[in-house]
Amino acid sequence: MLNIFSSDKELLAQLEQVLGFTPKRVAFYKLALMHRSRPEEATDSNERLEFLGDAFLGAIIAEYLFKKYPYEDEGYLTELRSKIVRRETMNNVALRMGLNKLVVYNTNDRSLSRSHIFGNALEALIGAVYLDRGLEVTRKFIINQLVRPYVDLDTMESTDTNFKNQLLSWAQKNNHTLSFDTLDEKIENTRKLFTVGITVNGEMIASGTGYNKKDAGQVAAKNALEKLGPIGER
Amino acid sequence: MLNIFSSDKELLAQLEQVLGFTPKRVAFYKLALMHRSRPEEATDSNERLEFLGDAFLGAIIAEYLFKKYPYEDEGYLTELRSKIVRRETMNNVALRMGLNKLVVYNTNDRSLSRSHIFGNALEALIGAVYLDRGLEVTRKFIINQLVRPYVDLDTMESTDTNFKNQLLSWAQKNNHTLSFDTLDEKIENTRKLFTVGITVNGEMIASGTGYNKKDAGQVAAKNALEKLGPIGER
Repeated sequence: MLNIFSSDKELLAQLEQVLGFTPKRVAFYKLALMHRSRPEEATDSNERLEFLGDAFLGAIIAEYLFKKYPYEDEGYLTELRSKIVRRETMNNVALRMGLNKLVVYNTNDRSLSRSHIFGNALEALIGAVYLDRGLEVTRKFIINQLVRPYVDLDTMESTDTNFKNQLLSWAQKNNHTLSFDTLDEKIENTRKLFTVGITVNGEMIASGTGYNKKDAGQVAAKNALEKLGPIGER
Repeated sequence: MLNIFSSDKELLAQLEQVLGFTPKRVAFYKLALMHRSRPEEATDSNERLEFLGDAFLGAIIAEYLFKKYPYEDEGYLTELRSKIVRRETMNNVALRMGLNKLVVYNTNDRSLSRSHIFGNALEALIGAVYLDRGLEVTRKFIINQLVRPYVDLDTMESTDTNFKNQLLSWAQKNNHTLSFDTLDEKIENTRKLFTVGITVNGEMIASGTGYNKKDAGQVAAKNALEKLGPIGER
């Protein structure tokens, strides 16, 4: 590896702070912090490690949610996981961890610091931790250094997805009469399938289907919100 | 767990054959084999385990490819992985493993046996193996019992993606004059970006961009093939 960092000792100290443990094979971590816009002298970038880290991030978050929410169905778990692992969340976490001070990239290219390169470097760092220390340490790193300090699960659970609440508060604010009505119940592949319609001031504006009334109502509310346009215009 | 299987002993013998090891906590595996169209008496289904198993399948295949192909870039690894883990591949593997004889589902619903429920059950089984025996055993199960016997990586590497070859052989068969031309080279985010155009009998039919000429040519060929329509119509 090239000695791009001012000194290995300094890097090691910074890494320890970010990781919460002492890395063994520092070369993996140096590579994880190397954006492809790196200085000319460098020959490799963190993209392969990002591929590996992204995969283990997904698996470890899946396990974490699977165990934390024993009574939620797979749809709920899938949605919550995608909120945690998505680019915006990971980039935000990376910035709060201070990874922008560690990633080696072309600082002359101003568009880079506004892109997701820090979140991508965080995924690459997860790949480095996995190769260096295995699954257990990687899980601890993700849960203790990323999720617990920087990911607000309670807010994630409630935001965005509660389309029904969003719609109700819009109706209340604008003095609209809103109603949710079950339009249809049928058996599909041995399961009951419900269709719920949403009426605003007597006019049906959207409907949705689901395996229970709650889900069907959520889908209908989501469709209604899409039809009504962005919150600002409502 | 309910005793839906004729006997636990029989199930255990069948599981051992599929898994390549002796399961410890059989309840996990029973649940993994329980489709939601299960008999009335059953109360739970394999969907949560499928969520977990799918995540670890993705991670373990990522690690396998990362180590098997040390010189391929992340785009290559991502594409190869998606071919392995996609529904059709997994369902095919599950059928060849004989999981259709083990999955508990509503056999009166004929549409089910033509859907991907066996591939989904295989993912759930991976989740069960992970919960029962941890990462190492899960990795061995996936690589030794699924990938090595049933996934032809060499064929996967070459098929579908070689759009350029597909296009060339189409042109040859139909006596068309085909040429690939570099239309543009520019610097974007410190990297060179190439645009390649494809001309058939003197008429440009498609173009594509990429960070090298080879990739740009592939993208252009893919676009050209999409424009030309399915192979049968060409």
